[in-house]
Amino acid sequence: VVKREVVQLITPGTVMEGNMLDEKENNYLASISQFDLDTFVLTYNDLSTGENSAAIIETGWERVVSELFNRPIKEIVIAKDLPEAFQQDLMERLQVTLSFAENTEISSELTQLVDHLTDSRLKQGFARLYHYIQSTQQRALDHLKPVQFIELNEYMMLDMYSKRNLELTETIMKKGKQGSLLWVLDQTVTAMGARKLKKWLERPLLNHRLLDQRYQIVEGFMEDFMSREAVRETLKSIYDLERLAGRVAFGNVNGRDLLQLKNSLEKVPQLLSILLACNQKEINNLAKTIDPIQELKTLLENSLEQDPPLTIKEGGIIKTGFHEQLDEYRDAAKNGKQWIAELEQQEKKATNIKSLKIGYNRVFGYYIEVTKANLHLLPEGKYERKQTLTNAERYITPELKEKESLILTAQEKSVDLEYRLFLELREQVKAYIPQLQHLADQISEIDVYQGFATISEQQAYVRPTFNKNRSIAIVKGRHPVVEKVMKDGMYVPNDVTMNESTDMLLITGPNMSGKSTYMRQLALITIMAQIGCFVPCESASLPVFDKIFTRIGAADDLVAGQSTFMVEMLEANHALTNATENSLILLDEIGRGTSTYDGMALAQAIIEYVHDQVGAKTLFSTHYHELTALEETLSNLKNIHVRAEEFEGRVVFLHQIQSGAADESYGIHVAKLAALPEPLIDRATIILKELEEKQGKEKKAEVI
Amino acid sequence: VVKREVVQLITPGTVMEGNMLDEKENNYLASISQFDLDTFVLTYNDLSTGENSAAIIETGWERVVSELFNRPIKEIVIAKDLPEAFQQDLMERLQVTLSFAENTEISSELTQLVDHLTDSRLKQGFARLYHYIQSTQQRALDHLKPVQFIELNEYMMLDMYSKRNLELTETIMKKGKQGSLLWVLDQTVTAMGARKLKKWLERPLLNHRLLDQRYQIVEGFMEDFMSREAVRETLKSIYDLERLAGRVAFGNVNGRDLLQLKNSLEKVPQLLSILLACNQKEINNLAKTIDPIQELKTLLENSLEQDPPLTIKEGGIIKTGFHEQLDEYRDAAKNGKQWIAELEQQEKKATNIKSLKIGYNRVFGYYIEVTKANLHLLPEGKYERKQTLTNAERYITPELKEKESLILTAQEKSVDLEYRLFLELREQVKAYIPQLQHLADQISEIDVYQGFATISEQQAYVRPTFNKNRSIAIVKGRHPVVEKVMKDGMYVPNDVTMNESTDMLLITGPNMSGKSTYMRQLALITIMAQIGCFVPCESASLPVFDKIFTRIGAADDLVAGQSTFMVEMLEANHALTNATENSLILLDEIGRGTSTYDGMALAQAIIEYVHDQVGAKTLFSTHYHELTALEETLSNLKNIHVRAEEFEGRVVFLHQIQSGAADESYGIHVAKLAALPEPLIDRATIILKELEEKQGKEKKAEVI
Repeated sequence: VVKREVVQLITPGTVMEGNMLDEKENNYLASISQFDLDTFVLTYNDLSTGENSAAIIETGWERVVSELFNRPIKEIVIAKDLPEAFQQDLMERLQVTLSFAENTEISSELTQLVDHLTDSRLKQGFARLYHYIQSTQQRALDHLKPVQFIELNEYMMLDMYSKRNLELTETIMKKGKQGSLLWVLDQTVTAMGARKLKKWLERPLLNHRLLDQRYQIVEGFMEDFMSREAVRETLKSIYDLERLAGRVAFGNVNGRDLLQLKNSLEKVPQLLSILLACNQKEINNLAKTIDPIQELKTLLENSLEQDPPLTIKEGGIIKTGFHEQLDEYRDAAKNGKQWIAELEQQEKKATNIKSLKIGYNRVFGYYIEVTKANLHLLPEGKYERKQTLTNAERYITPELKEKESLILTAQEKSVDLEYRLFLELREQVKAYIPQLQHLADQISEIDVYQGFATISEQQAYVRPTFNKNRSIAIVKGRHPVVEKVMKDGMYVPNDVTMNESTDMLLITGPNMSGKSTYMRQLALITIMAQIGCFVPCESASLPVFDKIFTRIGAADDLVAGQSTFMVEMLEANHALTNATENSLILLDEIGRGTSTYDGMALAQAIIEYVHDQVGAKTLFSTHYHELTALEETLSNLKNIHVRAEEFEGRVVFLHQIQSGAADESYGIHVAKLAALPEPLIDRATIILKELEEKQGKEKKAEVI
Repeated sequence: VVKREVVQLITPGTVMEGNMLDEKENNYLASISQFDLDTFVLTYNDLSTGENSAAIIETGWERVVSELFNRPIKEIVIAKDLPEAFQQDLMERLQVTLSFAENTEISSELTQLVDHLTDSRLKQGFARLYHYIQSTQQRALDHLKPVQFIELNEYMMLDMYSKRNLELTETIMKKGKQGSLLWVLDQTVTAMGARKLKKWLERPLLNHRLLDQRYQIVEGFMEDFMSREAVRETLKSIYDLERLAGRVAFGNVNGRDLLQLKNSLEKVPQLLSILLACNQKEINNLAKTIDPIQELKTLLENSLEQDPPLTIKEGGIIKTGFHEQLDEYRDAAKNGKQWIAELEQQEKKATNIKSLKIGYNRVFGYYIEVTKANLHLLPEGKYERKQTLTNAERYITPELKEKESLILTAQEKSVDLEYRLFLELREQVKAYIPQLQHLADQISEIDVYQGFATISEQQAYVRPTFNKNRSIAIVKGRHPVVEKVMKDGMYVPNDVTMNESTDMLLITGPNMSGKSTYMRQLALITIMAQIGCFVPCESASLPVFDKIFTRIGAADDLVAGQSTFMVEMLEANHALTNATENSLILLDEIGRGTSTYDGMALAQAIIEYVHDQVGAKTLFSTHYHELTALEETLSNLKNIHVRAEEFEGRVVFLHQIQSGAADESYGIHVAKLAALPEPLIDRATIILKELEEKQGKEKKAEVI
């Protein structure tokens, strides 16, 4: 019977190395398993780092897509009978590869990875993923970490639209990191750190205590510039331990990889001593929990040569002194060669042929070469002729051959032994994989912290505080990305003030005046605060938000034949049915896509609904100036507007938010500046007055 | 005294050949001369074709920019004291190179080009341009055509925004031809034709008679498929005569260029005979005016070799039989060579050396070569040894040298003479430049006509008619570009009906429903009609529009710190102060950028102003549903809307325009479909009703 060898498959989600793998990004393979209409189990695996995780979603498909969106997922494993519409959705909205695996039986190799999970659905979900990995990989999976259960309720919920609209990790237009929040915040030094930061951005925290702990550390690094710089310098010499662990498990590391591992481990004590010397308890505590894996370091120091080759089968990896037998073989080979060098001298002297030399080739092994002119000087019988060249003859002698055999055997044995020793060493390293993964995790956290401190110092961010009375007090807040790309001192900061009894800000003001920057700014500041970073403002007191919903601009998500307005309504509905009083909602010009009264009626009804039924903190921008009257009837709503001024015949936006409604006659004022015919302006003014009177309002004329 | 040689400069506007020159585009150098606040003279020159033209603008700077925009202008010559703001404008909005020339004196070389112009300002403007060309070029400018005065009043006026918004020659997003009207209409075969078409698109006509003449010809080509195909086939063999004429003037044509000229001229009689055989009088008439320049053709036929080389100094260009002396030289050379061939035979026979041969090299000229083995066969004294090789000796004889001198002299003289003859020929061709330019012009027109016929047949365009009672009646009109990129049969055609007493259509309907396509469609159809092309519809009766103004979408023209709304107002003002009752105005959601009542008041005032004061045919789209009430007070305004229908829980746009106002509760309806909470929908419905009642209107609920 011929044993059929199953070929290892490389799929988008199981790439282990090379160009397809971005070192600053995780490369997830995910699985989706549906249990009932609204219940799904998601599992993730990053084969390059060994990370495994799983989550349960019980609130429907849209949440599944939001959860998957913006994570670097390359491939999703699903059951063939996952509804066609869902499959379509995954391909169109997430643009991933779909693969199929039906097996959700928990096999014996899985036990150790899932034993701690209590919900059998999680086990089934992970089994689907694991079976797929096993059938494609056909190799050791020793580095896989136990499945981490992601309790989604412990993290802020951000739907897909918000993640995209807020440009957390990539911009909408160019789809690149440049210009995103991640781009500003990523001051990490290691690839592990960059990946960790991205993970944190995907899941802002809800827990005060954890956040305070993060702030303490960031603050520690901020206040101690020298230590921070020393940490950064040390981190630069630390290799990607996380992915290295994966490659150790797969058995595709060479001597150089282990050398880099050794060099990295040698840096850890230095890192620890810097951290322990910091004047910040949380940093000291963090350092105390770090195991520098001295044993492994010593093992590698004792075993590895200084400059091993790329190949692992030609020796040169194992250090002299590490293994007695190996040293003996090496001595034998070395001594043999010495003996031959001496033989050459002896023969020269004995024959008096100065040009006599001993050489080596693969066919004849070692030989003595004598030029034809000198042949007569050779004694009879002692030499056996082996090869004739144009101008020389090559000979061997029995003792030469004896020594040769000794040398070659020793060399061969040495290389063989070295290879065996290397494999043993690799196996020994394998045993340290969990410790290595843990160390990698801690180092990448430190990297993220120092990065937060670095950017916070650079951009003058401050530590936010959290309050439990649902009030927002941001003094001179800035948009972290806009501020970064603008020229120095050009950015106009703005306060956000919403106390316990203010749940809604209704923002009026013309287009391009900065309304949407103001809204995004609040969302980004809260997200930064909830991942443990300092925030761009002079001071900030914030509630911990459980969810953020946004409906801002960007009409690029059109489903064929469906209107922007439909999309707008779907998103609005998503927000107001899922938000709680602890959520943040940003709605930008809802209703704009339909006729005025129709849109105005909807906008008002939505405002009232959010105000009365939901109670979430809400920023609502609008052109429906009439809605500002709601301030009188809705007790928790306040009007604010963007200030505009006339400057040399142009209207200039100062990007300054002020309380109260915007001047309603901005448009007519601009029309005047644009020199529209006077009768037309007069007529427009009369019409505006009539409209306002009909609306039953009294407005004073303002100068903008 | 050393004569300082002035180097010829290549500037963006004076490129003559190579990669920088697009064969399907003119390459204009322009000049601007300001005479008073609002008066400017523009001049154009295309150095590659010799075209010169000039126009006077007396209506201010904006008109200058509009006039320059969208022509392929690479460089503009101005006075140093042209106001800084204007210079800025040119660079930012047109992105051209600015060059400076102050001299506006009319020099003597100019006389023949400008003598026919009556306005001295035109002469001064052109003098500025000419002095710049002269100082950069330093070469013959014989091909420059007399300056053509462009009477701007004879053409439809299209401002810069309209040209861009309507995407006549390039798209807004990608800045490419693909997707523009030009892209659809360009079915020309020659580069001259492509350039001519673009020129026509830049300047639609106002003259009924001229347009009817164009239609006749297009119709003739449409109805006679065989002739049209024959014309296309013939045009393919016709070279770019226009640019060739320019290169003749500059003296940088070679034998091959003239050969291509000859080949092209040989095709002209064939073209004429096809045209004359057409069953269309206008085509016959056109053909009758064409001078095929037989004389030049005959001259070239008689003088040019079949396959001249690229160089012009090594002979091989002039045909045998064209010049007696040349023929003699050539005979002499040829005979000499014959004599030498015969000599070789004789010597072989005389010496009985079979391997004897006569050769030639640059150092010794002709020689007799004998191998060393045969040297003994040579008679004494007859041969003079010249060179010794390893195995042979080389000799000369007096008679060989004599013949040699004869041959070389003849060859040298032949080449010299040929070069002289070629230069003479080129000079002779130069004399035909005006005729060639005229012929090129006529051929490129024919190319445009056949192109119109080709696209009209392909896309089923029809011949429009013009009326003098300002009414528009387009039956089943289509947008030529959208139709082309859509799948077959998907495009939904729409009528446009505006009789004498309908000046305005107020279009309501939600976003994405096709309002702006409908508006653009009308503009494109009128432009196509006024360049002489057939139009995409079943039938069209149109007035001749003197100007088109558009304010449609696209917010990419922001001046820093200035709002979209300001730009909107500036454009609106531009339209309503410049439009006449014979103009077409398209206004898309004017007022959208400011608060509702403010924007609504302005929109209404603008509508009223256009309706009462301007009387231009106007399409006005809006979300201000309340404006539909104006139908009752403004006698010449009609409401139309875009039909939308519910289909499987989605709102689908049928892109069908119908009379009457759109249903105002579209938004609420969509909100219902998007499953917003029922109380919210109920509340929105109540608010809408209240708003409507306050507005004092009675509306019946409609099902969309």
